[in-house]
Formats: sequence, C-alpha cells, structure tokens
Amino acid sequence: MKNFFISKSRRLRSTPFTSRIEQQGVKNYTVYNHMLLPTTFSTVEEEYLHLKKDVQIWDVSVQREIEISGTDAHKLVQLMTCRDLSNSKTGNCYYAPIVDISGGMINDPLIYKLKDDLWRICIADSDVLLFAKGIAAGKNLRVNIFEANIDTLAVQGPKSFKLMEEVFGSDITNLKFFKYDFFTFRGKKYLISRSGYSKQGGYEIHIENAKNGQDLYDHFFEIGNKYNLKPGAPNHPERIEGGLLSYGNDMLISDNPFECGFEKYVNLDSNIEFLGKESLKKIRDDGIKRKLMGVKIDTENLDLNNIDILNNDNKVIGELRSAAYSPYFKKVVGIAMMKMEYCKIKENFKMKIINKSVNGEICNLPIT
Amino acid sequence: MKNFFISKSRRLRSTPFTSRIEQQGVKNYTVYNHMLLPTTFSTVEEEYLHLKKDVQIWDVSVQREIEISGTDAHKLVQLMTCRDLSNSKTGNCYYAPIVDISGGMINDPLIYKLKDDLWRICIADSDVLLFAKGIAAGKNLRVNIFEANIDTLAVQGPKSFKLMEEVFGSDITNLKFFKYDFFTFRGKKYLISRSGYSKQGGYEIHIENAKNGQDLYDHFFEIGNKYNLKPGAPNHPERIEGGLLSYGNDMLISDNPFECGFEKYVNLDSNIEFLGKESLKKIRDDGIKRKLMGVKIDTENLDLNNIDILNNDNKVIGELRSAAYSPYFKKVVGIAMMKMEYCKIKENFKMKIINKSVNGEICNLPIT
Repeated sequence: MKNFFISKSRRLRSTPFTSRIEQQGVKNYTVYNHMLLPTTFSTVEEEYLHLKKDVQIWDVSVQREIEISGTDAHKLVQLMTCRDLSNSKTGNCYYAPIVDISGGMINDPLIYKLKDDLWRICIADSDVLLFAKGIAAGKNLRVNIFEANIDTLAVQGPKSFKLMEEVFGSDITNLKFFKYDFFTFRGKKYLISRSGYSKQGGYEIHIENAKNGQDLYDHFFEIGNKYNLKPGAPNHPERIEGGLLSYGNDMLISDNPFECGFEKYVNLDSNIEFLGKESLKKIRDDGIKRKLMGVKIDTENLDLNNIDILNNDNKVIGELRSAAYSPYFKKVVGIAMMKMEYCKIKENFKMKIINKSVNGEICNLPIT
Repeated sequence: MKNFFISKSRRLRSTPFTSRIEQQGVKNYTVYNHMLLPTTFSTVEEEYLHLKKDVQIWDVSVQREIEISGTDAHKLVQLMTCRDLSNSKTGNCYYAPIVDISGGMINDPLIYKLKDDLWRICIADSDVLLFAKGIAAGKNLRVNIFEANIDTLAVQGPKSFKLMEEVFGSDITNLKFFKYDFFTFRGKKYLISRSGYSKQGGYEIHIENAKNGQDLYDHFFEIGNKYNLKPGAPNHPERIEGGLLSYGNDMLISDNPFECGFEKYVNLDSNIEFLGKESLKKIRDDGIKRKLMGVKIDTENLDLNNIDILNNDNKVIGELRSAAYSPYFKKVVGIAMMKMEYCKIKENFKMKIINKSVNGEICNLPIT
C-alpha cells in the first residue's frame, strides 16, 4: 500500500508531547478527536512484540475528556448512556455506550464520576461535547459542559507496574482494574486510572498541567532504560486480538450496543432515564440480526477495501471492519459484523482479494 | 518541517474518488469530518498559480451533508443558527454560523433549503449531526437527522465556467453565486451550487450516487485537457488571501460570531428562536474585545508553533491562527485573532521565530 503524508495544521491539534515524540522518531500519525495520535515509531510488528514483553508510554491525549458539572450533571450523563449509573461511585471508571434516540452508537467512552455534580467522559472519536450541549440546551439543564484541558499518557505493558511504582510509589500497585485515584510526583497530584487500550496491563495518567506532564514524561525516559521503556501507541493487532473495539472502525451510529456485544452495559429494566431506552427495548424484544465477532483469515495482509465476507455460495454474510496481521497467529486477525446465523465459533468463510480467494474462520472476541 | 505519514484506517473514511486521486498522484491528506481530504498533488505554490489561471477538480466529499427532514425541520435548523432563515428560499445557499447556548462557534456551514421540511447542512469539521440530534432529543422535535450519503466535487478556477458548460450545458452559466439548481449529465440529475472554498469562481457538485459520480469524474478528465484541468484541493494561501475562514484553524467554540466577522449573519432583532440568542445579545451590548484580521508577515515561512503576535513592548496583542507563504505577496499571509485596539489597517507588529524577530502588519480580510 502506498504511503501518504499528513498535512499538519492547527485544526489537527498537537499535544504537549508532540515535539518530544517527534524527537523520538514517530513516523505515522492518525487523527482522532481533531488531534494528532501517533501510531508507529518502528514497525507495528516490532511494537507488538515489545508491548507484550516490556513497557511503552503512549501519547493518547486524543482521548479528550468532556467535563460536565452542575446540578443536573448526573442527569445529563445518564441521559446519554444506556448503562445504569445510578449507583456509580467515585473512584471507578465506567465503560459506557453512548446512544442516540434510536439506540445507535455515538461513542464508547470511559466515564469518571469525580463528585455527584462533576463527571468526565473520556471519549472515542466523535464530538460528544456537541451531543451533550444539544441535549442540555434542549432540556434546559443546569450544567456546564466543556472539553477539559487534560492530556493523557498511557503506560502499558507488563513492566508498567514496576515503572509506575518507581515513579509514584508502591501504593499504585494496589490500584485495581478500572479504578482511579490520585498519586503524587514531585509534589504534583495526578489522577491515574488502571486502564488503557491494550490487554497487557497498565495505567492512564490524566494530566491537567502541560508543563508538569512534560516533566513527568521526561522523567519516565530518564529512568526507563532498565524496563526497556519505549515510546509507543495503541497497537492495531494487539487491540484486535484483545477485542478492544474502535469507534469509527468497528462500530458506527448505524450499529446498536447489542450488535457490538455490549449487552451487560444495556440496562433496560432499571428506572433510569436515557434517550435510546424505548428503541433499545424494541431492539432487544425483536432480537438482533447481526453481531461483531472475531475472525482469523489465512493471509498475511489484506486491504480494507475488500470487506465482504462470503459463504461457500458467494453470498455476503458479513462485513470486515478491522484487520491486521497478527505476529502471534501468523495470519490476519480482524473484527467483523456477521449475520447472526453465521456467528458460530469455527464457522468457515471466504473473502475475495483481487484475483484470489482466501479462507477464514469465525472466533470469539478476545481472539485466543 | 519534517514530514509524517498518515495511518489509514476505516475510521478515516475514503471517498468514491480516493482510488482515482491516488492514481493521479495525491501526496498529502488531512482528515476532516472523519474522512480523507487530499491536500497536495504537486506543491502548494504550483497549485496556487494553476488554480488562479485554469481549473481544478477537488474531492471535497469531507464537506458532509447533515440532512434534517420532518415537521420540525425548519425549527431545528433555526435553533442552531443565529442567521435569520425565516424568509429563506429553495435555490439559495445560506452561509450560517452555528452557535451553542453561549454563542460559541460550533460550525460555519452552507445551509441548503430543499423544501420547507427538508434541509441539508453542508458542514465544516465538527459533528453537527450530534448537536442536532441532542437538541432534537431534548426538545422532542419531529425530525429525522442523518448524515446523507452525498459526496462533493468542487470545480474551481476561472476556466470552471467553460468546463462546466461543456459538461452540463449553457444553462449552468446563468447560475448566480450562492444559488443552486439541478443539472443533467448522461441522463442523471445533479444538485449543483455556484459555490466553493476558493475565490477563483466555480461550482460544487453534490453527488448522491457514487458510480454516477465516478463516471462524471472520469468524463471531466477525458475532456479537461483543453482547459488545463488538474486534480487539486483547497489551497491554503489562496483561501487565506480570500478571507475564507477555516473552522478549527481560525475559529473555535471559544470564539463568537462577532469576533469572526460574521455580524451580518447574526440577526438578533428579528423574532426567530435560536439557542445562543440571549448570549449573543449580551456580547453585542458589551462589545467585543478581539477580532479576526488579516496579517502580512515579512518572512518566507513560519511554523505555527509560534503564534504570539507582539507589539513593540513585547506585549502579546494577538494570536496567529492560519499562515501560509503567498506566491503573490512573496511573504507569509495569515489570519489572526487580534485585540480590538490593534485591529487597524497597517498597524505594525512583530513575532519571534526561534532566534529572530520578524515584522508584520495588520490588513483586512480578504487580503488585497
């Protein structure tokens, strides 16, 4: 596949770490929430192997945080998501589908409750800010809504625990998955969550002061050699194998949370009020006709222009949405929206790539 | 400045013309409304000179169209914009600031009224879809809202008129600026507007059927040689000189339409209802403290990391938001948000670039 350059402009926002990662040799960017997201420093395969063995720091400032505060903050956050947040607690991270009035997926953020009247929605790639502002204006809610000036560093990989302990102290090793707390470095407090867009373990550090964040970043790389620390980025085959979905790739507004496998985050039987509730009840009662599944495809590379998944009669039975070569499986792994009757483990299919046909099979997510 | 590659993925959507423009040698992309926007085929300067002399076809499918239909369609569109649309007519394009409840800029689309209950909002780079959906849900409006499956080709440059006449017939030469109508090619009807993101004249063709659009694209290049037709893209120095603002570059949600020079599109004295009305009345009555102006800077290139505009006492008096080398002025031209007391034509300023200081002067937009 041919390579193309990215045209930088102020509209594709830089982060406090952009100049550092460029000095560290970033090669590729993507754009996410109107901001630059580094994607590769060496090769995807090299970074895959390193991420599973050592530790990486990722500039994931693109995970913008929509802050909602005020008397009606809880009400507004609940209106946007089908996950029941009525018993939500500070200190927890809530993965929660945001849906429109038809039950269509708008985003799949992590939601942080800081106080009853102060929430942060750490978003995937769509302007949740505008959705929240629209609802609040339409319903005359007493809220303040803005994109917080917060940038995020992810520390990911099996050695992240030792590295973070050295920097923030041993208390951080007690932080459980999808919990957050405040930890101190050089007298400055950081909100840190045990979370991140990999399955290799790690943390996300939410940075409110760019200068402090830069000092922290530099410190990591001053002491990181003994952990074989490298700059990195969300790794495409690793996240596909881990079943971590990507909004805009794997799911869109035309998909509902049941189709995305989010059943446990769709709470239709409690008395919460949210926008898509009636639509999702109907969808549940009617039953869904397709679902996201893992796939393994017997090829070493695949252009995502070829997305039709076919049965033996050449009938389209699904649509490939993400795909990457897996150094572990030595073939392409992917995520596909499959017709329900084909959502069976080890179900075989084929795909046509230019002049040849390749075989594949359905599997669960995560892909094991 | 170092170049970086773009990491393609399904999330950065291709258009029906992507494979064609890649065969035609596109070098750079940017991302706009979650979609690929080609930016350069040769050099910015070469394309600037060509655009002013001949004719280019641009794949501006990124100008996504949000379609709003139903009983309350007019009401919803008006709620989003401070421009009075009560006497709007089909056949016209309305440039209209979309504002939030605080009067902050959310987008600056062209709005097309197709029928009383059918509107299309042709957007800049932010998810107006979600803003509209939020308001509609909050107010229980009877509307359908979706991103239409429409891709746009712009035909821009002084020879666009002759080229379009050859393809669509002589009637198209009667179409006035910011009007639209339907024209036929090979038996298929196209909505075509006399509009586009350059000051060199031209049209935008709104394509509802990808295959037909590809046929049309190919036909343009089959007959285009005699007009010296080339593939192109919105040209940075040309649009800055023309005073065509870019949402995300020149203005953001933290700016209001008065600061952006949109006074004539802020209608506060009619009886229309829109979200930011009370806020904008207050802003008008208080008076604004800064405004977007043109700038000319005595240098040949400039990194947008240096954005402070200084007076002789080294006090910050403005912020540079867009800048590009102008082949016409032989210096950098730009758009800057300036403190009101410095918004005077020929007002001098300076900027610090690494180790040197460069001089500049304020000018009007468009820059002449």
